[in-house]
Formats: sequence, C-alpha cells, structure tokens
Amino acid sequence: MTSQTILSIATRGRGSQDITDAVARFVTGSGVQTGLVHVFVQHTSCSLMITENADPDVRRDLETIVSRLAPDGDPAYRHDLEGPDDMAAHARSVLTATGLSVPVGGGRMLLGTWQGIFLWEHRTAPQRRGVVLTIIGN
Amino acid sequence: MTSQTILSIATRGRGSQDITDAVARFVTGSGVQTGLVHVFVQHTSCSLMITENADPDVRRDLETIVSRLAPDGDPAYRHDLEGPDDMAAHARSVLTATGLSVPVGGGRMLLGTWQGIFLWEHRTAPQRRGVVLTIIGN
Amino acid sequence: MTSQTILSIATRGRGSQDITDAVARFVTGSGVQTGLVHVFVQHTSCSLMITENADPDVRRDLETIVSRLAPDGDPAYRHDLEGPDDMAAHARSVLTATGLSVPVGGGRMLLGTWQGIFLWEHRTAPQRRGVVLTIIGN
Repeated sequence: MTSQTILSIATRGRGSQDITDAVARFVTGSGVQTGLVHVFVQHTSCSLMITENADPDVRRDLETIVSRLAPDGDPAYRHDLEGPDDMAAHARSVLTATGLSVPVGGGRMLLGTWQGIFLWEHRTAPQRRGVVLTIIGN
Repeated sequence: MTSQTILSIATRGRGSQDITDAVARFVTGSGVQTGLVHVFVQHTSCSLMITENADPDVRRDLETIVSRLAPDGDPAYRHDLEGPDDMAAHARSVLTATGLSVPVGGGRMLLGTWQGIFLWEHRTAPQRRGVVLTIIGN
Repeated sequence: MTSQTILSIATRGRGSQDITDAVARFVTGSGVQTGLVHVFVQHTSCSLMITENADPDVRRDLETIVSRLAPDGDPAYRHDLEGPDDMAAHARSVLTATGLSVPVGGGRMLLGTWQGIFLWEHRTAPQRRGVVLTIIGN
C-alpha cells in the first residue's frame, strides 16, 4: 500500500517549525499499519530535522551551531546571487537532511517521546515550501 | 512484505558501537529478498552512522571532529539542563542521522566490504536506546 | 513492486558529479508510478547529496565549507594509512549522506526544479564507486 501527498508550507524566514502533526494526520489517513513514512523537501535552501520537541532553546542553540559551520556572507563564497544567506542556506541543507523516513507501527509513527519533525528554513526571508509525504507499508 | 522490531540497546556512554550483526539477523529472519531495511533511533541525543568497520581509530577521529563542531559546555548554549554534554549531543544528532536505510538484495544487506552500521551515543553517561528496525520488500 | 540495480561509477577524484539522469532512467524503467527510490553508496569515503543543479559554484563553495569542518592531514587524526585525505574523507561521508530516498509520483522523481542528485567523491584520487538503486512502490 502506497500513498502520497504534497504539503505547501509557509515559513517565517530562518528558523524551524514543527510539522509532526501534519505528518501524523497523513499517516492516520493512509490506513497503513506497519511501514515507513518519508518526508522530503523539494528545495536546496531548507531542510528537515528530527530533534527535541520540548525546550525551544534546543533549536535556538542549533541555529548558533550551524551559523558557525556555514556562516552567512563568508568572503570565500563565490555563490552569493541571492544575498549573504544564499550559500549558507545550501550548506545548512547539505549538512542536515533533505529527506527523512520515520517507522510506522500500529498505525502511527514510532517517534520517541521527545522527538519532533521540523521543517528548517535557512533563508532569512519567508518562503513557501513543498514537502512531499510518501507512505509505504501494509 | 513488511516486518518490524524494536531493539533495546545499552550504550556505554559517548562512543559508537557496531550494530550491523543485529540488523543482519533481522533481515535474514524477515525472509525479504529485495528491498530496504530502515534503522531508526527513538532519541535526540544519539544517532546512527555507516562508517569504516576495520580500524577503530576512524571512529575515534570522528569523535575528535564532532567535538569541534559541537563542543561540550559551550557558553553560547542556552539549553544545558542535563549538563555540558546535553546540547552538544542534540547537535551531533542533527549533524549525523536519526535514521538510515540500507538496500537488501539476495536476502542480505548490500553493504560494502568496509561498511558497518553504528549506534553513536552522544551523552557521556550510559543510556538505554530504542532502535526500530523496519524492512519492506519482496 | 520492487526493483534494484547497482551502478558502477568512475569518479575523477575529489568533487561531485550529477547522477540525476542515471537515477531517473532507473525509475522510468522500473514502471513504478508511486513510491520511493533509494540511492546508496557502498563506500565510507564518498557520499551523496541533493543540492542545486544550476550554478556549479554552489558545489565549489560546499567543498570550501567541508574542507574546514574536516580538514585534510589534521595532526589530531590517528587514522592516516591512505594519506592526508583518508580520515577527512570518512568524516565528510558521515557529515553528509551514505544513502538517500527520493519520492516517486506519476512515474518520475518528485525533485524540485533546482534539485540534483550528486555523487560526492571525497578522496583526492579517482575511484570506482558502487551505487545501489532500489525502488519500492506501485
């Protein structure tokens, strides 16, 4: 059994937002009991992550950490057509995840208690993002 | 054909341990000949990696590298409730992988000769970790 | 429905090359309309990424960024049997992706306009790399 949908999600500029509930609704609607649900962003300047869903400071600190690994406006970058956050956003995307799969059992995602699924916008301006959800199983 | 199990694995604190054999046994037991096996940790402070299974110095050097990317006890962190390794562990998780899939062919994982699957504990204290294995295929 | 193949790809040493067309041909040939295609490298010193397919400077800048995160010939490394790029290559592999899945809908990959799939060689010398393609769906 396979089903698929594409979400269109408005971001508010750089930062991450919880999309766990949207994915959970898709899983429930699919009727799949055991399998995998796959989440995929159709872009190269945002990404996905699974991280702690309790203390928002975790995601604030993650911004601090990735801003060191791929700083905005680095003079070494050649690709800066769309501004100082352009290349940094591509790098953050490559260092995190364009797609991820979560196991489904008993008709729901087998996430741990503290795990949430987040869409992570890396551009400083708000964007509209296509997120493909695909579920395969029985 | 889909099957699933949840392993409970005791870690010995920060460091990585080879779980390839446990995943291989699950693949064999499933009877799937061609498909994908998915491995998923239900936590946000440990992760998974596929890396060299021969020289343990590779995994020691990986600790050195990630400890620079996400240092323990960085004064910039706001999230430090559980100690200096708390936020560093979340960051190491996001920079590596919460889940991964390995192709199955001829009834076994199609890993390269030097590839092993490792559970990577990022907390300094030992933990018990839930690892969900899911296989889909024919 | 499941199908699988293994590509053998010659790299030209460190750098990334577009393998989107090869994956797309496999998807078309499989006859799968809706599902997931999985790409996997059977090695620990190269990796995969999805990134911008338009301006090659993006991939040049990504080299700059990862060469800072995992520098060649770092005196802290213990694993250097195969030269100064050996351990750096393993680290680049772990920080990016050994495998990735792309959703398939309407019989083709649902990549965004600017997304390409790249095989990323991290060794400085040319290599021959095994890339396993697996598709599951209906």
